[in-house]
Amino acid sequence: MATIIILGGDGFCGWPTSLHLSNLGYDVVIVDNLSRRKIDIDLGVESLTPISPISTRLAAWQEIAGKRLHYENLTLGQDYHQFTQLLKAFEPEAVVHFAEQRAAPYSMKSTREKRYTVSNNLNATHDVLCAIVDSGVNAHLVHLGTMGVYGYGTAGMKIPEGYLPISVNTETGPLQLEILYPANPGSIYHMTKTQDQLFFLYYNKNYQLRITDLHQGIVWGTQTPETALDQRLINRFDYDGDYGTVLNRFLMQAALGYPLTVHGTGGQTRAFIHIRDTVRCIALAIANPPQRGERVNIFNQMTESYRLIDLAKMISEMSGTPYQFVANPRNEAAENELLVANDRFLGLGLEPTKLQDGLLTEVQDIARKYIYRCSPTKIRCTSLWQATGTGEGCAPPKAAINVPNSAGGAVSAVELPTAA
Amino acid sequence: MATIIILGGDGFCGWPTSLHLSNLGYDVVIVDNLSRRKIDIDLGVESLTPISPISTRLAAWQEIAGKRLHYENLTLGQDYHQFTQLLKAFEPEAVVHFAEQRAAPYSMKSTREKRYTVSNNLNATHDVLCAIVDSGVNAHLVHLGTMGVYGYGTAGMKIPEGYLPISVNTETGPLQLEILYPANPGSIYHMTKTQDQLFFLYYNKNYQLRITDLHQGIVWGTQTPETALDQRLINRFDYDGDYGTVLNRFLMQAALGYPLTVHGTGGQTRAFIHIRDTVRCIALAIANPPQRGERVNIFNQMTESYRLIDLAKMISEMSGTPYQFVANPRNEAAENELLVANDRFLGLGLEPTKLQDGLLTEVQDIARKYIYRCSPTKIRCTSLWQATGTGEGCAPPKAAINVPNSAGGAVSAVELPTAA
Repeated sequence: MATIIILGGDGFCGWPTSLHLSNLGYDVVIVDNLSRRKIDIDLGVESLTPISPISTRLAAWQEIAGKRLHYENLTLGQDYHQFTQLLKAFEPEAVVHFAEQRAAPYSMKSTREKRYTVSNNLNATHDVLCAIVDSGVNAHLVHLGTMGVYGYGTAGMKIPEGYLPISVNTETGPLQLEILYPANPGSIYHMTKTQDQLFFLYYNKNYQLRITDLHQGIVWGTQTPETALDQRLINRFDYDGDYGTVLNRFLMQAALGYPLTVHGTGGQTRAFIHIRDTVRCIALAIANPPQRGERVNIFNQMTESYRLIDLAKMISEMSGTPYQFVANPRNEAAENELLVANDRFLGLGLEPTKLQDGLLTEVQDIARKYIYRCSPTKIRCTSLWQATGTGEGCAPPKAAINVPNSAGGAVSAVELPTAA
Repeated sequence: MATIIILGGDGFCGWPTSLHLSNLGYDVVIVDNLSRRKIDIDLGVESLTPISPISTRLAAWQEIAGKRLHYENLTLGQDYHQFTQLLKAFEPEAVVHFAEQRAAPYSMKSTREKRYTVSNNLNATHDVLCAIVDSGVNAHLVHLGTMGVYGYGTAGMKIPEGYLPISVNTETGPLQLEILYPANPGSIYHMTKTQDQLFFLYYNKNYQLRITDLHQGIVWGTQTPETALDQRLINRFDYDGDYGTVLNRFLMQAALGYPLTVHGTGGQTRAFIHIRDTVRCIALAIANPPQRGERVNIFNQMTESYRLIDLAKMISEMSGTPYQFVANPRNEAAENELLVANDRFLGLGLEPTKLQDGLLTEVQDIARKYIYRCSPTKIRCTSLWQATGTGEGCAPPKAAINVPNSAGGAVSAVELPTAA
């Protein structure tokens, strides 16, 4: 069967994707510089689940599944020549690109993390595109984007899958166009993903590269059928203030019996997807590539939307732990609706795992089981979205989209909270 | 008077801007790593005009104008700490950012130049923004963008100054919005400038930075009143296939008596501005900064549009040199209209220098005067916009904007030629 190269194949999404694709029969090549593990060292935190070293992971999968995962320790954005040679050697059917710094709070931590996120993510994505052109392989690039590229929601308006139909007035009448959804990122991390979109736009247009961009919601859940096969294959669970999602924060607080901390009013609505649906989506994207000459193929990779307060209430009921409201460190709208089109993956046969059905497993099998490994002081987020002395508490301007007064407009655009 | 820091202040736009602002009474600090001069060394080319070393330039200005230009050799994107210290030390009123690799053909030359352009431009722009936040100075950032961020023109539709009013259909009726003009870059270089726009969008929104982005057309002309004061102050004139503009190619060919080479049909329309108007625009932008909390301030910095064939005819008539048609190395539309709004600078008092009035001076005082320094083999552009073996001659897909069939639409969107 065909070869798939997985960039960032040791990470939270990358590792279970590698196993899932290997299990489906693909020859899997993992490229990972282990930067995610090294960031944990700098932050002084650890995955709640006891993840094994990459070498142990690879050996365990060979023992259990009888399949070999090829592994290369390369830094995209730096080791360009080696990566191009790898492409030529393996001639992959697809390259799955998870190799970016993916935490919004980490990207806002300080100057060092901002500059690292920008340099790492942009140079990595560009190297991947440039190397595909250079090597002459006909690989389909599957990239993990984020729901955060859509910065605006609108009452009564569903966020489309990538492209927005608009009308522009001209001297000779209205013109109907379809454009990439206007970007309005909510953090340095999200900004780099909106910039990735322009890399894809250009390389698709000029070199006819076949590219799929997956705008993913917050991933929850820890295990997939493959990672659950053996303790040595266990996936990571981040609960610290930088890499842990809001859901993992709630789960850890529930396991500790500490009131769940809801930022702001809890009226922020987020999109979610289970990790086992993530890996299925990647497989579906690989099996349904765009044709050469088609525009960038964009999917929304999410299955449910929840208000954070409703999520807190759900976990509170399951666990018997109360919740409390705390100040929101993010620079975002206090409340929002979130209607997201996700017909494309559903149309390809995705059967979503629901939070209502799977959360209790997370509380019991992950949070409570490994609570002995938790450092409770690491749970709270310490990154502030505003630099001291520059924000002065004023509201951010609506920089990308202004809503003029309009007699005909019965609805108004609102800024979405930071997406993930 | 206030201090202005000029990033890339030794370059083609940066040097005359530095002198103009110094002449107006500002304290000018030039930051430049001299990369433009070093690229010439690698390319084996030289400015047609005999430019002096930076130290000679600085000494000559002090001798002639009695004013000291402070100079720092720093690499933006790398020497972050030194740059932050510089901001703190000088507390500039404005930072003018020219410090990017600015040639589209150079950015398409090979992998090395693509990766350099992406890494250099994106890390430099981000460092400038991050350092302004970090240092706590209240500097207005004035950035040189490009008309090339607008990738699409439309029959009967004028390109606005940055923001496009659109209408979006929702379940509850049409919604009027104003968005950043949808990007559709025509080269790696232009792509980085569309990505710069997202840096500005985010830093303006989250940190309330005051930012002006100037979308400039092709700059022509060599001298400004200040650079013409002394031979040691002379500005650069690039005629090589990588850094020379179409206009400079025509001027050199005219001076050599070699038929002017028109790419394709010559139906591509470009926007132009004289270098002496560029430096005036920068001064106007500095004198008219946006307020804190205002969105990014966008101007179109161009004064005329010409079809390349009409430009060739004009220079052909002035010089008596014929013109010929050659294959177009760029991946762009063969013909286009170009209507550009430029009311903002005109409203601030800009009085444009016209090609019809100034071109003869360029032929006589620059091209013919320094023709003895010309290497004729360097004039033709050798960068191809398509990688061998990937393009296969097929037309690029309309990746960012699709024009659906529309009964009401009397006009259609067309892709613009690569802007500069």
